[in-house]
Amino acid sequence: MNTYFDKDMVLEEIRSFRVETPSWGYGDSGTRFKVFHWPGAARNLREKLEDAAMVQKVTGICPSVALHIPWDKEDDWSEAKAYAESLGLRLGAVNPNLFQDDEYRFGSLCHYDPAVRRAAIEHILECVEIARTIGSDTISLWLADGTNYPGQDNLRARKRRLRETLSEIYPALGSDLRLLIEYKFFEPAFYHTDLADWGMASTLARQLGPQAKVLVDTGHHAQGTNIAHIVSYLIDEEQLGGFHFNDRRYADDDLIVGSQNPFDLFLIFTELVAAAREGVIPRVDYMIDQSHNLEPKVEAMIQSILHIQSAHTRALLVNYAALAQAQAAGDTLAAYRVLRDAFETDVRPLLAEARESMGLDPDPIRAFRASGYAERVARERPQAAGGASGYPGA
Amino acid sequence: MNTYFDKDMVLEEIRSFRVETPSWGYGDSGTRFKVFHWPGAARNLREKLEDAAMVQKVTGICPSVALHIPWDKEDDWSEAKAYAESLGLRLGAVNPNLFQDDEYRFGSLCHYDPAVRRAAIEHILECVEIARTIGSDTISLWLADGTNYPGQDNLRARKRRLRETLSEIYPALGSDLRLLIEYKFFEPAFYHTDLADWGMASTLARQLGPQAKVLVDTGHHAQGTNIAHIVSYLIDEEQLGGFHFNDRRYADDDLIVGSQNPFDLFLIFTELVAAAREGVIPRVDYMIDQSHNLEPKVEAMIQSILHIQSAHTRALLVNYAALAQAQAAGDTLAAYRVLRDAFETDVRPLLAEARESMGLDPDPIRAFRASGYAERVARERPQAAGGASGYPGA
Amino acid sequence: MNTYFDKDMVLEEIRSFRVETPSWGYGDSGTRFKVFHWPGAARNLREKLEDAAMVQKVTGICPSVALHIPWDKEDDWSEAKAYAESLGLRLGAVNPNLFQDDEYRFGSLCHYDPAVRRAAIEHILECVEIARTIGSDTISLWLADGTNYPGQDNLRARKRRLRETLSEIYPALGSDLRLLIEYKFFEPAFYHTDLADWGMASTLARQLGPQAKVLVDTGHHAQGTNIAHIVSYLIDEEQLGGFHFNDRRYADDDLIVGSQNPFDLFLIFTELVAAAREGVIPRVDYMIDQSHNLEPKVEAMIQSILHIQSAHTRALLVNYAALAQAQAAGDTLAAYRVLRDAFETDVRPLLAEARESMGLDPDPIRAFRASGYAERVARERPQAAGGASGYPGA
Amino acid sequence: MNTYFDKDMVLEEIRSFRVETPSWGYGDSGTRFKVFHWPGAARNLREKLEDAAMVQKVTGICPSVALHIPWDKEDDWSEAKAYAESLGLRLGAVNPNLFQDDEYRFGSLCHYDPAVRRAAIEHILECVEIARTIGSDTISLWLADGTNYPGQDNLRARKRRLRETLSEIYPALGSDLRLLIEYKFFEPAFYHTDLADWGMASTLARQLGPQAKVLVDTGHHAQGTNIAHIVSYLIDEEQLGGFHFNDRRYADDDLIVGSQNPFDLFLIFTELVAAAREGVIPRVDYMIDQSHNLEPKVEAMIQSILHIQSAHTRALLVNYAALAQAQAAGDTLAAYRVLRDAFETDVRPLLAEARESMGLDPDPIRAFRASGYAERVARERPQAAGGASGYPGA
Repeated sequence: MNTYFDKDMVLEEIRSFRVETPSWGYGDSGTRFKVFHWPGAARNLREKLEDAAMVQKVTGICPSVALHIPWDKEDDWSEAKAYAESLGLRLGAVNPNLFQDDEYRFGSLCHYDPAVRRAAIEHILECVEIARTIGSDTISLWLADGTNYPGQDNLRARKRRLRETLSEIYPALGSDLRLLIEYKFFEPAFYHTDLADWGMASTLARQLGPQAKVLVDTGHHAQGTNIAHIVSYLIDEEQLGGFHFNDRRYADDDLIVGSQNPFDLFLIFTELVAAAREGVIPRVDYMIDQSHNLEPKVEAMIQSILHIQSAHTRALLVNYAALAQAQAAGDTLAAYRVLRDAFETDVRPLLAEARESMGLDPDPIRAFRASGYAERVARERPQAAGGASGYPGA
Repeated sequence: MNTYFDKDMVLEEIRSFRVETPSWGYGDSGTRFKVFHWPGAARNLREKLEDAAMVQKVTGICPSVALHIPWDKEDDWSEAKAYAESLGLRLGAVNPNLFQDDEYRFGSLCHYDPAVRRAAIEHILECVEIARTIGSDTISLWLADGTNYPGQDNLRARKRRLRETLSEIYPALGSDLRLLIEYKFFEPAFYHTDLADWGMASTLARQLGPQAKVLVDTGHHAQGTNIAHIVSYLIDEEQLGGFHFNDRRYADDDLIVGSQNPFDLFLIFTELVAAAREGVIPRVDYMIDQSHNLEPKVEAMIQSILHIQSAHTRALLVNYAALAQAQAAGDTLAAYRVLRDAFETDVRPLLAEARESMGLDPDPIRAFRASGYAERVARERPQAAGGASGYPGA
Repeated sequence: MNTYFDKDMVLEEIRSFRVETPSWGYGDSGTRFKVFHWPGAARNLREKLEDAAMVQKVTGICPSVALHIPWDKEDDWSEAKAYAESLGLRLGAVNPNLFQDDEYRFGSLCHYDPAVRRAAIEHILECVEIARTIGSDTISLWLADGTNYPGQDNLRARKRRLRETLSEIYPALGSDLRLLIEYKFFEPAFYHTDLADWGMASTLARQLGPQAKVLVDTGHHAQGTNIAHIVSYLIDEEQLGGFHFNDRRYADDDLIVGSQNPFDLFLIFTELVAAAREGVIPRVDYMIDQSHNLEPKVEAMIQSILHIQSAHTRALLVNYAALAQAQAAGDTLAAYRVLRDAFETDVRPLLAEARESMGLDPDPIRAFRASGYAERVARERPQAAGGASGYPGA
Repeated sequence: MNTYFDKDMVLEEIRSFRVETPSWGYGDSGTRFKVFHWPGAARNLREKLEDAAMVQKVTGICPSVALHIPWDKEDDWSEAKAYAESLGLRLGAVNPNLFQDDEYRFGSLCHYDPAVRRAAIEHILECVEIARTIGSDTISLWLADGTNYPGQDNLRARKRRLRETLSEIYPALGSDLRLLIEYKFFEPAFYHTDLADWGMASTLARQLGPQAKVLVDTGHHAQGTNIAHIVSYLIDEEQLGGFHFNDRRYADDDLIVGSQNPFDLFLIFTELVAAAREGVIPRVDYMIDQSHNLEPKVEAMIQSILHIQSAHTRALLVNYAALAQAQAAGDTLAAYRVLRDAFETDVRPLLAEARESMGLDPDPIRAFRASGYAERVARERPQAAGGASGYPGA
């Protein structure tokens, strides 16, 4: 089965695919109820980079690391950049943090107080500078802005403030930096979120200009939303800029990508690969954005990569010609089976072969567990100050 | 409380508000499991117009009736128009039906077969002609187009077909007709819907031109979606064209507007009234679109109007100046209370006064029940051929 | 990988697994908007049985057919039974229809009018008689009962009516018939549904007695509901009686089982197989209940069986001993990978082998398409009277 | 309108209604992204009690305070009790905390490790002792137990552990203490939650015995769930033990009760009042459980009480006799209007009168704002150590 495909091409596509891991995925995180500490969880940028280097070592497709400012703020960025390079990594998307300062209680770029908006603008401009300094070309913008109660703020005024503040920031991008605009259905805002869906992110990106694109976080949609459809829509509008990958069953659960619904992840990739097969290959950054509440950080990241590769590879195996034929004939079930055939295929042998051709262990999890890395960092990294949570009750 | 407002102005706003009722709301309808017949349910356009005239008689704010073609198709439109006018009505938005012909199994404007797309284009162009003939300036377009299974059709191809077909139709609107584009989260399509959300409708409307606007059906969103936010967003983008009102708890339940969540309906109106208070008063058509499965059709329509008036009037009573003040002070709870105060107000006396000043009975339901209309039509209109359903099983 | 398992045992488990197909799945059905006719769709019980026999012929695991009364009502049940047997089939669960008579507008067993409740009781008792006559031991009860508006009826009174009416029916089951009680989150009722969740079905079943069990329809839950969890819970409470299989993305979409989320179907089966591995093997009836709106009926049914077999077989391959070990060690990711390994496995070769050992074509879809059956019935079965829908608008 | 009711009786019902406020509602809390500090937020049990006394002072219906152990743990409980009494308060439900110790990473009573289960049992038994010491008769149990990934633990084993551990605890309740069992759809567990719905809580409560009842948290349900129906069901099963009130639009948003959907809160109360009118008056504890992320704690609590009173009072005004009549006649719209009439009524004058008859200010918010309390505690209570969150990223 599936013998129609060009195996060498698929192997090359597997090898050349890239996923960026997030610095914050290597540290402790949790729910509002509790942050459980994981032994050896990274406590600073250096340790996060070391963890990321370990992920890259066993997967071979994760050479870059996204940063969160100020979580990862460094005094000397050239030194940080050099350290990353010494580990075989480069620094990737810069994520401004616009939700953890006390002044952001009522929002950042949408805040009714011009002083808070000014602070948020300055923070993003600082991130633009950092990006230039570290050789990154991407600002990844997520706003927690929103309201919890009807009437809390004027929705149209907030919309205009957002456009206004971003219009001020946009020129700083020049022609070499990209602004990826993320949207989210809800949380931490529970009445309205200023960028609530792809339509709002897309409208804004279009108004700003070609350097602005939409970032799709797979956990940021209402129940039932067909993300593959949105992805195909954004591709066609030339507005898809990247992904924040994770998985969920309920809300923004931030679980390991592909762990709850591997078929939906596969369907997202079929839209991307189908477009690519037609020559439509936009610049899309594939980034992970998860919160590992219970599980070991580095191993969870490796497993995430495996799930992405499983979905991506299956999408590479789809017989798109046969699919188009069945579609043109209105043969619903035959068309479905073309996708399903690829999904039913066990792609682990193919992935093992690709890894071996890259000089990697065919089983990254086994390689990681055999390395003793987890045990070593658990010994070497004493726990940072006490586990926090968003629901201290005191 | 609430003594700040100009009562005469509010009374005038109540009186001048208009809601369009749908011809199809007067006939039998149901779920896929069963269409329960209601005694006296209208069986043709004449009877629907008579019912609508009754609604207008007791409410005074429903002078127009939306049509569905071919359900309401007439041989002689000038006669139909004259009949409507003789009842004190005018014919309103024309709704093409693009889902009940056998050829629409796989869609209409998005269908992979050009012949089906051609038929759909012709049908809409026919509706444009009808609109011109009957003096309506509005085409209200809902597409049932979508797919049930991944792979069933090419999503990007469908997107382009939709843009292409509507681009062919658009010029026929001239400068005097409007095209209202409706979106829907799902149903009858269960994998993807071609116009799945406001963002897709809005993108398309923008691409077509200024005669195209977005139609918000209050039942067509994912659970939790903040419709008031979308409304405010579309107002600010100058893309809001109208409403299809109904209410729901689960899916597109098509229940009586405001019956399940009167507060959300009120919040939608606060966005419209707030904009109006600032002088932003787009042309917005307020239309009802419900499916009365169990309840008497005419009385259900009157009750719908009462719910709309209840929500609209409360929104008129909001102290928007006080609201703005509380918002500017970051006083979340005070801001919320400004809205809540208006919502807590019993507006029935005010509505009764408005009605009396229009020469109406202050209690439209009582007036309707006293009229004997329901009993009369139940006698005079024998049931049409047997109750159908979408789940015959046989 | 997965070499730990006993292949002969798995092959035998594949062969001995049984799925019941529904008579109504062979006829035309649709949404409230439209019933699209499929050429050759069965128009009566004989034709449905012939279709079911075709499904059994190519799958080998579908020897029984569920009936819906009165859709499938026959004057001479012994003749119908003999005809089924002549096709190698037996008649299975009897499903009373309590939603398509005009008197059921406000419910059946929960109706406020004792006369309607009486009619519903009599109908179910008739179905019990039919079951005895045709040699079936299962009554499968789905109630459409509910309300559309707050206040429409007294919820506690309805609850008591339901218990009372079923208590009257229960003794008629004797010790040889089972009553499977289905629940549904919503539709066709849109405010409340009398049996809204497994908890209500379970409470009722417990109150009635050991012949009453809970029926899980995989499409009848709120978004996000973990059905595998409910299944495991009902197994442990000795209350799981059977399944109605289908799939969905939004509401009760009634799509082909396993077509939208194959992983969730697999997880349901892992609960059943895990219990079986511990010797907990309740009588569970696996039945399909779908509405084929767009697709060919017989082929859709065969494909459904393939999806069920795919999920079931993968569940058979799970290394439950390794799973228990990882669980006992708190090794979240290793435990997940045990499941995932089975899910990643391509079980098509194993299924082909099982089929061949049953004397079947290894590819049932190919066998069916090669048979010419679809073309033949399309020729031989002219369409029944016009396509109905629940939204005629007229 | 609504003149049928006995005003004195309603006033007395308003006056005698009691709501318990939670100690943790007076301290800072937040989302996983950030805990915003509120000036003057209570930092220990004494301050929480002082805040609660202020709420009681202006509302007159909140004489008791729920505790969370160990958040509120005291060395000398008799002293704490005396202090509460000196403020005119009594200590109410005791809430064990089974989610913030490091050992609870994989659950508490359901944990695979008997040592963790033992610790959880001991903690609850300690809470039983505390309850006895402080004169409370209620243990309010919420379990965060669940899993994040399929396979992480054995669902049936967890179920049995829960029953087993609670069976060990149950006898300690004697005949004088009650155990309220809370359920939650999801969060902080994102694959399955051990007590996921009312059915699981109810099954467990029944198995334990009559001292165990179900606690309904209004934010703990899937989207669309009809909570009023569940409440009516539990009343009829004699299993309703109490409420945790809050409101939500998306997930467990923990917003001010009645702020997002006042009609649904009203419908819940109509079920309770309707039962009471028939003489069915179970012991039901009305408790608030919210997380004030943005708003002032004490004022938010007072506003919550106002919303509850608004909904409760409207439910008291329903003409249940007229409702029953309309129901018996199958007059859906008339029945709905009976509820709606009560809901449309402005109950603020009635509530003001009730308050004045209790010697209170008719407007509790005004009274609170005039008291200068918020300003005083903001001065007197310096912020506790730095704002935490569940998403530190570092």
